[in-house]
Amino acid sequence: MEQKKDVSIVRHSAAHLLAHAISELYPNTKLTIGPATADGFFYDFLPEKNFKEADLPAIAERMREIAERGLPLGHKQISKDEARKLYKDNPFKLEIIDNLEGDTVGLATQGDFYDLCKGGHVDNTNKLKNFKLLGISGSYWRADRKGQPLQRITGTAFATPKELRIYEKRREEALKYDHRKLGRELDLFSFNEAGPGFPFFHPNGKIIFNLLIQYLRNLLDHAGYKEISTPAMLNVELWKQSGHYDHYRDNMYFSEIDETTYAVKPMNCPGAILIYKSHPHSYRELPLRLSEFGHVHRHELSGVLHGLFRVRSFTQDDAHVFCTPDQIETEIIGMVTMALEVFKKFDFKDIRVILSTKPDKAMGDDALWEKATAALRDALNHAKIPYEVHEGEGAFYGPKIDFLIKDSMDRSWQCSTVQLDFFQAENFDLWYVTNEGTKARPVIIHRALYGSLERFFGILIEHYKGKFPFWLAPTQIKVLSITDEQMPYAQELAKKLKDAGFRVVVDESSDPISGKIKNAQLQQTPWMLVVGAKEVEGNTITLRYRDGKQEHGLTYDDLLRKAQEANR
Amino acid sequence: MEQKKDVSIVRHSAAHLLAHAISELYPNTKLTIGPATADGFFYDFLPEKNFKEADLPAIAERMREIAERGLPLGHKQISKDEARKLYKDNPFKLEIIDNLEGDTVGLATQGDFYDLCKGGHVDNTNKLKNFKLLGISGSYWRADRKGQPLQRITGTAFATPKELRIYEKRREEALKYDHRKLGRELDLFSFNEAGPGFPFFHPNGKIIFNLLIQYLRNLLDHAGYKEISTPAMLNVELWKQSGHYDHYRDNMYFSEIDETTYAVKPMNCPGAILIYKSHPHSYRELPLRLSEFGHVHRHELSGVLHGLFRVRSFTQDDAHVFCTPDQIETEIIGMVTMALEVFKKFDFKDIRVILSTKPDKAMGDDALWEKATAALRDALNHAKIPYEVHEGEGAFYGPKIDFLIKDSMDRSWQCSTVQLDFFQAENFDLWYVTNEGTKARPVIIHRALYGSLERFFGILIEHYKGKFPFWLAPTQIKVLSITDEQMPYAQELAKKLKDAGFRVVVDESSDPISGKIKNAQLQQTPWMLVVGAKEVEGNTITLRYRDGKQEHGLTYDDLLRKAQEANR
Repeated sequence: MEQKKDVSIVRHSAAHLLAHAISELYPNTKLTIGPATADGFFYDFLPEKNFKEADLPAIAERMREIAERGLPLGHKQISKDEARKLYKDNPFKLEIIDNLEGDTVGLATQGDFYDLCKGGHVDNTNKLKNFKLLGISGSYWRADRKGQPLQRITGTAFATPKELRIYEKRREEALKYDHRKLGRELDLFSFNEAGPGFPFFHPNGKIIFNLLIQYLRNLLDHAGYKEISTPAMLNVELWKQSGHYDHYRDNMYFSEIDETTYAVKPMNCPGAILIYKSHPHSYRELPLRLSEFGHVHRHELSGVLHGLFRVRSFTQDDAHVFCTPDQIETEIIGMVTMALEVFKKFDFKDIRVILSTKPDKAMGDDALWEKATAALRDALNHAKIPYEVHEGEGAFYGPKIDFLIKDSMDRSWQCSTVQLDFFQAENFDLWYVTNEGTKARPVIIHRALYGSLERFFGILIEHYKGKFPFWLAPTQIKVLSITDEQMPYAQELAKKLKDAGFRVVVDESSDPISGKIKNAQLQQTPWMLVVGAKEVEGNTITLRYRDGKQEHGLTYDDLLRKAQEANR
Repeated sequence: MEQKKDVSIVRHSAAHLLAHAISELYPNTKLTIGPATADGFFYDFLPEKNFKEADLPAIAERMREIAERGLPLGHKQISKDEARKLYKDNPFKLEIIDNLEGDTVGLATQGDFYDLCKGGHVDNTNKLKNFKLLGISGSYWRADRKGQPLQRITGTAFATPKELRIYEKRREEALKYDHRKLGRELDLFSFNEAGPGFPFFHPNGKIIFNLLIQYLRNLLDHAGYKEISTPAMLNVELWKQSGHYDHYRDNMYFSEIDETTYAVKPMNCPGAILIYKSHPHSYRELPLRLSEFGHVHRHELSGVLHGLFRVRSFTQDDAHVFCTPDQIETEIIGMVTMALEVFKKFDFKDIRVILSTKPDKAMGDDALWEKATAALRDALNHAKIPYEVHEGEGAFYGPKIDFLIKDSMDRSWQCSTVQLDFFQAENFDLWYVTNEGTKARPVIIHRALYGSLERFFGILIEHYKGKFPFWLAPTQIKVLSITDEQMPYAQELAKKLKDAGFRVVVDESSDPISGKIKNAQLQQTPWMLVVGAKEVEGNTITLRYRDGKQEHGLTYDDLLRKAQEANR
């Protein structure tokens, strides 16, 4: 954690360095805010004339120059009046000053450059040489899309040149395996200006998408979940009751039907709740585990749309478990176990688990919070999984568990989440009849494992670098005949494998075998079956893997057994 | 056909009889139109005071009375001026008169009642005794929901009392097996006022829904279709280009995104076309068969919503085949074959096929129309299926084939449709590179087999009267122990069957075996496995079918074989 704090100090200081360089190069630019982020830093500017990507090298050069100057960094408190004078021409900083509590504000200084700042810096600009500017994007003042449009310059920085080098190497790799690039190359999906942020799945992508659903559907079935589906649009009054309208309406789409406003669903909870309410329940039915592959729409600013990682419509592998307080622990154990099984299936390692507990402002009585939080802890202990506790960071309506996974390029992703909810059962007057014949409120557990299927798919593309495992590859096996003479043998082999349930294609081109192999490798096909005169004569098969390794003289039965094993 | 014409004359005359009765009972009611329909007739009225269901018996009584009067029916042509005088207080009839071509209009008479009419009646009201009034609903003048709201009285009529009796018996049966009633009883789906016309699928219904998709997905895969998915919302400009906005916008929902209007998709074609356009195509890729289980939204008046039969959102089993004109015949043969296979799978009989040919106003050159229509005929001949030709009833953009199927209650349904399209490839500038290196337009074939999955599901519920075949039943097998002593044996049996892929439930209640059987029968579970002391001792199973038949002394292997067979 100490190191993490250090790097965030470096990054925050690098944001000042960027603003310093901009002030020198473009003195009429208005500065706004420039925080450190999880991966780096950014600074939002209102430039006199819009910055272009081509301006970045000169800006970076000036930053390096200022770093070389070896300016000591200072920090002091000044009165708000003094600050207002400094920023008399900058309405953004004036607004920040007005919104700060107390009579003084912090001011960071380096040379003749100054910036409003709470503090926390390196001591000299010469410690800021290990940075990299990453790009320019659009943003809004206060992230309010009705507010002033700004320009954001993003970068990252590290304490040592070695860390920067590691970062740059990973970034290069990440660009090489960018899911948008691989998505095009492997013909998995596309986007179109007719619907920014709304993905189109091509046949290869749809195969994987369906397999992701099928895999989870099978797990859910064995774990006693029951699948439902709920409408894509529901009356806005329902969303007012659920609280989504008040807290989330800027991210929701609306449509008029018969002079009434309907919302396109951004979440599946109200739909699941209406199904629960469609008839009375007895304690015997609990826990009732309702799962839904729910297609939701959420507005995102066009500037933050990013392939499948950030879209405007996606499919949640959602579930709502209605249970008694006594059942929480067992349910959570089941969910944690399933999450770990899913991560293992997709070869994710270094799972980080975070338990967020009761915040200051919370609903539901203390006894329930304590019981529930203890149940979450016990469940995590039972799963023998280490976890961090973020005290007070739960939602106002219940504690939660988040899972962070690391991909093959060592990047962290948050996908799975398990969230207790003491609010909606009360809000929607849900109840069940206890074994004593009285009415009681169920607890609702919201949970998702993939999170967004679209985003998870994007992560998998990069995690696997396009080389999907055998069970998940759109085409699992390509049959390649050395000459046309072996074509009937190839076709027969393909037919048998297809009938056995595999996704098989025969390369019917007139390319030489080297061309056929190259083509299958470009498409990242896991298995190539090479059949020449020798194979036909001996009634055998040569199996060539994606990495070039080969196995000769396999019988069909050998191959089938191998394929069935690989398909698990 | 002759008989059909007769019954439509009876029904049209019965509509006049209804209007006659209304004129006598409620003289201030304004008459509008009253045609015969496929199943009966209706008449739309603007009443002085709204009719109620409770008024129907008195109205029917007066109709019977007028029928008994034995009034001869007459028909004559009168001048428009004369007609305008007759209808000076009825703006609807005046509008009809204005819109008719020529200087005269037809007038039907019976006693002192008259009505505008083209003609085609029985000769005496005493031939109209075999009618039944069915209900009252809301409608609009000219079916325009911005127009004058009216009240529609619906009925049916037949030439003979026997036909009416058969009809009434079927109607009674249909009400008994109404899918909305069975949907509740079998807990398959529900509707909620928060989304009229938007179905909620409960776990049992979702199992069937998923099986319907899975069954078709398998057929499609074997037939070389490739599945895609396209966004639920797309820019309105796309819908303007496709023509949907001009012709269909009253049935479309819209939403604003970033100050641009998006339409919630009512059809999947533009999405499929954008995927086709996402990269260039060679003749080698054709036919390209893109299928989509596309979730579409279409506005329907709230008055016509009817369970799953008429909804506002549904899933089409859509496909768009892009092919050369030479490939049309083979493609159509494949589609017709698949449609017949699907009908057979679901035990539908009496398939009627209708070929609709080039209308007067059509686009595309004559040679293409002739070639395509000949291909459709050849394909139907090849499938050895009789068909009717509706000359001139194709769409302006291509000929089509419709399939009508009869259910177990002898009712006709139109589900499957195959539609050629010469327009959209031109409109969206689609092309492929021919084997000569030139560019050519593909033909698009739109086709759906189920049509709407929701509606098809509704039809199946009624067709099977809730008794789904083994492969489609939400719970396929219920294991019933005679006493608690056999519970471990029952659990073990259920586990083995579940692991073998069947949907199995153990009745864990403390009901006596008779109660357990009754309960399983109410839920229409196809198979009950009854296990008592005798079965445990002999390690056997008693299989009880839904209809009460039993097989004793089965081994597990016998049962598994039977179940695997039934599951096909």
